[in-house]
Amino acid sequence: MLIRLDLKSSLPIYMQIRNQIVLGIGRGELSAGQSLPTVRRLAEDASVNAMTVSKAYALLKEEGYIETDRRRGAVVRPAPVYDDGFSAKLSDSLSILAAEAKAHGMKGRDFLSFCKNILEELGQEPKEEQYDF
Amino acid sequence: MLIRLDLKSSLPIYMQIRNQIVLGIGRGELSAGQSLPTVRRLAEDASVNAMTVSKAYALLKEEGYIETDRRRGAVVRPAPVYDDGFSAKLSDSLSILAAEAKAHGMKGRDFLSFCKNILEELGQEPKEEQYDF
Repeated sequence: MLIRLDLKSSLPIYMQIRNQIVLGIGRGELSAGQSLPTVRRLAEDASVNAMTVSKAYALLKEEGYIETDRRRGAVVRPAPVYDDGFSAKLSDSLSILAAEAKAHGMKGRDFLSFCKNILEELGQEPKEEQYDF
Repeated sequence: MLIRLDLKSSLPIYMQIRNQIVLGIGRGELSAGQSLPTVRRLAEDASVNAMTVSKAYALLKEEGYIETDRRRGAVVRPAPVYDDGFSAKLSDSLSILAAEAKAHGMKGRDFLSFCKNILEELGQEPKEEQYDF
């Protein structure tokens, strides 16, 4: 998978690496049991410091997306079931994005269409009859 | 409005202040033309450094949520129309959240229900007939 970094972004590089890997998992490009590149390799490929990659991997491990295996290095973990802690964090983050959208004059229906498009891009287009609203 | 800070969060305090103010605007608790507390006042109320509040206000100004007036201080700006730049940023942020949710085993329909609940909490419940999917 391709790690796309934006050096002009205010988002720290380790968070960008973390986000790109979570996107890879979300899109199914990285699946459970799959090894990530070594820290050194990814650092070379992305032209960043090894410490930066190391920090991204440590965060992904802490968040439960990957585990480290002595032999195989960083490996994608099977999807954990979402718990209350995750739901609360997701709710906080989504609230901020929805508030940003509203403050920019975006209607609720447009925000939902936006979300629907994004789910489709991730390859999890929900079937029409699944909607309960 | 109440500024709720989580000192145990990994999110920097200035970003938490910025997010709380954006949430206040999104919820309609802060409306266009309304003055925010002075930097000094908010810093005292929230028991944080004035530089931290100043950084939050500078970011809000850069993002177009507030403007600073010599007499009235920081004032909420009228909602800007969302442009391609905002849409692209929103799309990136939502993609990461959707990928996180998917990696945690959340179904697309549950993610959309989540979004719908959040819009309702913000007070912009879209009418049933408005949905085009």
